[in-house]
Amino acid sequence: MLHLPHHDGSALFVDQPNPSLGDVVTVRLRIPHSSASSAVWIRTVGDGEPLFVQAQVDFTDDIETWWYARLRIQNPVTHYRWRLTNPDRWVTQSGTLRYDPTDAGDYRLVAHRPPPDWASDAIFYQIFPDRFARSATAPAWQQFPDWSTPSGWQDPVIESTPGTLTQLYGGDFRGVEERLDHLTALGVNAIYSTPFFPGRSNHRYDATTFDHVDPLLGGDAALAQLVAALHARGIRFVGDLTTNHSGVTHDWFTRAQADATSEEAQFYSFLNHPHEYETWLGVESLPKFDHSSKGLTDRLFDAPDSVVRRYLCDPFDFDGWRIDVANMTGRSGGQDLNHQVGRQLRRTLHETSAEALLIAEHCHDASNDLVGDGWYSTMNYAGFTNAICSWLGSWFPLDHLEAPPRMRAQTGREVQQSLDAFAASISWRSRAANLNLLGSHDSVRFRSIVGDNASLHSIGTTLLMTFPGIPSVFQGDEFAMVGTHSHLSRSPLQWDQPHDQSTFNNHRNAIAARRESVALRRGGFRWVCVGDDHLTFLREHNDGVTLVHAARSTDTVDTEAIDASLLAAGYEAGHSTTSLLTGADVSLRDGLHIEGPSGAVVLQLK
Amino acid sequence: MLHLPHHDGSALFVDQPNPSLGDVVTVRLRIPHSSASSAVWIRTVGDGEPLFVQAQVDFTDDIETWWYARLRIQNPVTHYRWRLTNPDRWVTQSGTLRYDPTDAGDYRLVAHRPPPDWASDAIFYQIFPDRFARSATAPAWQQFPDWSTPSGWQDPVIESTPGTLTQLYGGDFRGVEERLDHLTALGVNAIYSTPFFPGRSNHRYDATTFDHVDPLLGGDAALAQLVAALHARGIRFVGDLTTNHSGVTHDWFTRAQADATSEEAQFYSFLNHPHEYETWLGVESLPKFDHSSKGLTDRLFDAPDSVVRRYLCDPFDFDGWRIDVANMTGRSGGQDLNHQVGRQLRRTLHETSAEALLIAEHCHDASNDLVGDGWYSTMNYAGFTNAICSWLGSWFPLDHLEAPPRMRAQTGREVQQSLDAFAASISWRSRAANLNLLGSHDSVRFRSIVGDNASLHSIGTTLLMTFPGIPSVFQGDEFAMVGTHSHLSRSPLQWDQPHDQSTFNNHRNAIAARRESVALRRGGFRWVCVGDDHLTFLREHNDGVTLVHAARSTDTVDTEAIDASLLAAGYEAGHSTTSLLTGADVSLRDGLHIEGPSGAVVLQLK
Repeated sequence: MLHLPHHDGSALFVDQPNPSLGDVVTVRLRIPHSSASSAVWIRTVGDGEPLFVQAQVDFTDDIETWWYARLRIQNPVTHYRWRLTNPDRWVTQSGTLRYDPTDAGDYRLVAHRPPPDWASDAIFYQIFPDRFARSATAPAWQQFPDWSTPSGWQDPVIESTPGTLTQLYGGDFRGVEERLDHLTALGVNAIYSTPFFPGRSNHRYDATTFDHVDPLLGGDAALAQLVAALHARGIRFVGDLTTNHSGVTHDWFTRAQADATSEEAQFYSFLNHPHEYETWLGVESLPKFDHSSKGLTDRLFDAPDSVVRRYLCDPFDFDGWRIDVANMTGRSGGQDLNHQVGRQLRRTLHETSAEALLIAEHCHDASNDLVGDGWYSTMNYAGFTNAICSWLGSWFPLDHLEAPPRMRAQTGREVQQSLDAFAASISWRSRAANLNLLGSHDSVRFRSIVGDNASLHSIGTTLLMTFPGIPSVFQGDEFAMVGTHSHLSRSPLQWDQPHDQSTFNNHRNAIAARRESVALRRGGFRWVCVGDDHLTFLREHNDGVTLVHAARSTDTVDTEAIDASLLAAGYEAGHSTTSLLTGADVSLRDGLHIEGPSGAVVLQLK
Repeated sequence: MLHLPHHDGSALFVDQPNPSLGDVVTVRLRIPHSSASSAVWIRTVGDGEPLFVQAQVDFTDDIETWWYARLRIQNPVTHYRWRLTNPDRWVTQSGTLRYDPTDAGDYRLVAHRPPPDWASDAIFYQIFPDRFARSATAPAWQQFPDWSTPSGWQDPVIESTPGTLTQLYGGDFRGVEERLDHLTALGVNAIYSTPFFPGRSNHRYDATTFDHVDPLLGGDAALAQLVAALHARGIRFVGDLTTNHSGVTHDWFTRAQADATSEEAQFYSFLNHPHEYETWLGVESLPKFDHSSKGLTDRLFDAPDSVVRRYLCDPFDFDGWRIDVANMTGRSGGQDLNHQVGRQLRRTLHETSAEALLIAEHCHDASNDLVGDGWYSTMNYAGFTNAICSWLGSWFPLDHLEAPPRMRAQTGREVQQSLDAFAASISWRSRAANLNLLGSHDSVRFRSIVGDNASLHSIGTTLLMTFPGIPSVFQGDEFAMVGTHSHLSRSPLQWDQPHDQSTFNNHRNAIAARRESVALRRGGFRWVCVGDDHLTFLREHNDGVTLVHAARSTDTVDTEAIDASLLAAGYEAGHSTTSLLTGADVSLRDGLHIEGPSGAVVLQLK
């Protein structure tokens, strides 16, 4: 597909990715000679009215002509797309189109404040504190709370509720701190931890207070110490806050139930006080917040000592928040305050810490919530996880959320269409800041999705580390852990048992490749070619070009077609490249060769 | 394409098209046996969370199986799409898809109050009062205002500014009233008139007051009398209000300029009082309103004697408003109050008249503004006019708004993709209430777009009257008037000269077909097949099925393929049908036959 005109939001094509209102941004389009146009415009929309601006030729070489145009940033989100002649075509995020599309696939530049710069280089590791590691100083079983079912670290996970939620292994933050060498060896540079507030479950999404860290995890001191230790190693820390609901035992809800005239009674939606109230998906232990209560939003966001602010400041110094159930927050029947909550959170972050990241949990199409002034980005199940899982396996990863659970294996072409559809629906900025993942505590383990196939797992890991978006590894994926249901995906990490070293190495190497290649972290994205069984693409940046070629089956891959595409883009088969996964210097043709029935290669072309 | 599963928002498929929050709506899907599925779900989103509901078989016949599912209306706009198995597919407004799409193509049910029922049966005729007809009692030239260039009714239109805007022919509402027999003969049942407020131009979009009707048009009495006469004939009347700006000589702006402390000074955005202010696209005579001023929105919408209310009441009794420059209203740089204005207008309409229609001017993709609680619909240049003009001609109809002005003739397949893209982006309700048009006072005349080809003009008219959406004929199109620029499209109608009777008859017959066929007015929409040179589709309703077949060139039409598609849907070539354009009873095969190089047929199949 290198014969098609190309533009994206990366630095090669946009000189100011983070403009302010009134700025004039230079945007560029590359058009291979085989697809030449005699004239080029950008079409934008200002204050609701379409406007065309003629583009000029920047330069021409043997391969292509680069055009540029000047785009005025008239509104907080500025849409644009390209118009070409001979034949008349649109170049949009949805591709090169001969028909007239809606504006939904337009490129977008956003004048709201951008995500922190470090996010572009972040490689996340997700920790589920009860199951990651247990220190010697963690509370003994005898100290475990009444509601819990204490378990030894090697005990099997209880598969069904309520035991699956109350089973407590007793992992703690000191345990995490003891394993930082593991994280460093893996190469990640950011942690996202699921909740640390006290609750009445092992997942802690049912907070009983936001005032302090669960003593079972070591309390405030242990978390502050962990973050400091992480920062000392250059590793960021992002917390997890539920803005959709609290636990039924939360201080606020207790007061709300006890006194219908209390301020806290306005924080929730009582249908019939005190025992009937709105909940998260009908779960009575999770009463839903009512964000029309200013008292609530003050305490969560706006007040000087709000929950969000408190943990961004000393001694915790978080680097951001992941917002649980962000997709449902503020939404109930006829009321939709979701964007207001996103904007409040964003404003609080800006006021508190210029460097804080804000990622929303979202399990489906988030484009309508990524409008630029609220969440920076979302967990990218819809635009990454589902597609990759359907190509390398045939399970729907979020088993508990969307039925029907099984899905067929999609072809490479279908996967490309899925990936492109979601990428086209948001700004490049949001795409680059989306949290890509192969799985989480809420999903089937990726290793199980690919049928415990180490090579397919490795392909998934390589795609995770080479796609636009911030990659996130769920704890234990690097140990090839399995789990055929989200609850089973939460088994404790067994540090003292032998691990699948090859899967660990695959992770380490793919992470190293991302760390080495600025193109993988900050480059544009261009498909080279796609077949039923292979996905091949370029990540391109002024400081380097990286080629990724992944095949779930090498049988059907037409290497000559790939060679021909790359040749047309200026890379001959004999072109000298470096494998970013192995470090070997190879020719392009040799580098593209995959041993065995499946695999992935990452080559530094420039 | 009748072999594909089908659902749309029409009565065959949705038992409650206008539900309320909490309702459970039965939605149905037809699946031809060639495309059978062993299981079917609907996937919806409630409070931001995806949810699947299993569908059941309703019944099976020789052709297809109908499935149904119950959809709970949880939010004001409820999204849904269908999931099929063997192979796994989604059925969405964007078609039947093998990959995972975003929610942008979901079907939508809207719980906000619906447009008035009469809108479904409306056939509009657009009047530009200065150029439609002049009565004997209209003011003589001597009484024309200073700013005007008086012209005799047969004088040519001045082509360039400023003359093109100040040239006054002196058409009036009494002149319209004298020509009602013409409208009745044509068969239309609704009038949309461009503005009637006094201004300093012939188009009157630069109002000097909203308090009364321009005396040049006959004043309040003439308009009230016209509307009464229209209503007596069962013809509705919709006015035209500019909410984006006033004229520079408007009472409000005069006061605003004279006194920076006046209430009216808040109605506009002064950059530097009194001479620098925001305008419509830089035109100094059109100062832009600032809708953050409550004083402004009170006077326009909210106050008991607001502009919008006043003309919906006795003695005017308008049936609705068309809002000029609605796409830009409330939008300026960092401020976007557009949806707020739409909601205020909608609320005012509901409070004042249950039967009032609200249509927004919009020249491009309006999907983000058709969210269900503001404008009911928009002028459908983007989703209808542009596509039809690009199939039957090669001009961009809105010559003054979007460059590059010329565009290639699109193929039927490209036109179908364009039409489908816009239709998929909005609710069926908005699609059905969108104002389709071949042209207006703002466009090149359709007759000129098709190169003065009577047959292509007739095809356009037939498509206009057979597509989902409210058709609107621009005054004089039925006289085959030409105009190669929007200003030239505004020539006065020459009542005393011989007219192209065949073009008038084409209009009358196509309008009669729509009036006769409930399917054309209220039915679903299903493509039968599309070629480069033909568009063939069904409009289907419980009370009848209508087939439309339009060919810009009969040379390339594969009639056998159409026959085969219809046979698979249960209609044999010998099937007895009635031509709704000629009234003749014919067999399906004979009815599909088009004499000559191009044409269109409309057949009542059931």
